[in-house]
Amino acid sequence: MELRLDEAGLTGFLKREFGQVAQDFAVERVGPEGLVLRLKVSERHLRPGGTVSGPSIFALADVAMYLAILSRIGPVALAVTTNSSIDFMRKPVAGRDLLGEARLLKLGRSLAVGDVLVRSEGQAEPVARASLTYSIPPVR
Amino acid sequence: MELRLDEAGLTGFLKREFGQVAQDFAVERVGPEGLVLRLKVSERHLRPGGTVSGPSIFALADVAMYLAILSRIGPVALAVTTNSSIDFMRKPVAGRDLLGEARLLKLGRSLAVGDVLVRSEGQAEPVARASLTYSIPPVR
Amino acid sequence: MELRLDEAGLTGFLKREFGQVAQDFAVERVGPEGLVLRLKVSERHLRPGGTVSGPSIFALADVAMYLAILSRIGPVALAVTTNSSIDFMRKPVAGRDLLGEARLLKLGRSLAVGDVLVRSEGQAEPVARASLTYSIPPVR
Amino acid sequence: MELRLDEAGLTGFLKREFGQVAQDFAVERVGPEGLVLRLKVSERHLRPGGTVSGPSIFALADVAMYLAILSRIGPVALAVTTNSSIDFMRKPVAGRDLLGEARLLKLGRSLAVGDVLVRSEGQAEPVARASLTYSIPPVR
Repeated sequence: MELRLDEAGLTGFLKREFGQVAQDFAVERVGPEGLVLRLKVSERHLRPGGTVSGPSIFALADVAMYLAILSRIGPVALAVTTNSSIDFMRKPVAGRDLLGEARLLKLGRSLAVGDVLVRSEGQAEPVARASLTYSIPPVR
Repeated sequence: MELRLDEAGLTGFLKREFGQVAQDFAVERVGPEGLVLRLKVSERHLRPGGTVSGPSIFALADVAMYLAILSRIGPVALAVTTNSSIDFMRKPVAGRDLLGEARLLKLGRSLAVGDVLVRSEGQAEPVARASLTYSIPPVR
Repeated sequence: MELRLDEAGLTGFLKREFGQVAQDFAVERVGPEGLVLRLKVSERHLRPGGTVSGPSIFALADVAMYLAILSRIGPVALAVTTNSSIDFMRKPVAGRDLLGEARLLKLGRSLAVGDVLVRSEGQAEPVARASLTYSIPPVR
Repeated sequence: MELRLDEAGLTGFLKREFGQVAQDFAVERVGPEGLVLRLKVSERHLRPGGTVSGPSIFALADVAMYLAILSRIGPVALAVTTNSSIDFMRKPVAGRDLLGEARLLKLGRSLAVGDVLVRSEGQAEPVARASLTYSIPPVR
């Protein structure tokens, strides 16, 4: 399937529409097979002990899936998350960014479904796994 | 079952151990049937359009369940979220705090399970529903 | 909200449309607050050791939510499950039926969301908790 | 990681311990990267219209993950499902078996986590996606 937004297009969209969080993320790669998003881990993402907080990992998965959908349908639609299930499996490695690898499993007329594997940069074993469903509003 | 931490005890714990996020939350009520936690919605929780962000709602559910567990087992254990499933059902009402109502469905030796209903203050219909599993480390 | 199908109406629907599984279930109660469905536990629902199998518990939750939706929208629509998250918390009591208590949290134009608590008959503590999302096809 | 049970070992285990459901399944492949399990679709798995029922798809995912865990830890332990989240994405193709491809994402001392993609045989696009958590009892 054709890509409607590439790395630069997605980055621009993020800055324009989500100014508050855009600085936390960087689009690493986008292609037919999915998208990789980086969470630039900083002080405000951490919990006591230096672990990245659950909500920050959730945000990474959520934004990664959102951008994966937009890469296919373009920047016009207003998709909203309707469901997410997340497994937290290992502690992130201290002082490393997190990478979320999103794959789109279904892109229907009204629902999109996919999952995201989250890893500390340079580690093979995943920190978390999330699946997400987005509701896509009908084209007007 | 006996409560080991009341509103004041939980609030003190939150301030001591989770200084970064403690200011976002207020423990409204805790009892045998569960716990109600308030997210004091401010600018940094919002997405474009004035909606509370998904990660902020997730954080409310996660902290509410965590405190509900601690109210029963005391402040000693280091419980970690292993799984969460969340349904986002309605847009929060603009300009209102969110209330998360947590109920503990299982408190086992190694796993605790519960769910949280999230509502805009003063609204009957829920904004979100989350279920969460926490792993409780063995007593040493 | 008005009920469009009561116990008898739902039971009739189940027999007509789901003949294969209708004999496994009995609608105990339906009202504005939700629906209680009984799984008449028999040999074919059991796993070694006499426990009710996971898929049988899943089926109870799935059918309970389905009927709760139909009680509100009537027998016409063809709703399909799009997501389910289930927590298995305790072993069912041997030799007892299971009761699934469904509550509808959202009944939108295209999505319905609810959850189900599953208990062994006569027990207070839940065996399982499930949340389910159904996609409701547009009215033609 | 070393495999403790291969296709033949897992098939034997299934027949011995789960006689009731063993005939429904066939272990296609098992290796370090995961396991593929076939659901031999027959009349009793179908819903009206010829679709494989949700509980049958759930059972395929659940058994696939269970066997993937046993392939690594051997037939001794008694693992139980504690959580499952499943997305139903497409109707299965009528008259075809279903294949569940399980990958193990974490195999810890007390919890194992993985996911399963379910496809109609010969189709690229998945019918369903499930993630599952198993609790592994401590070694005595």
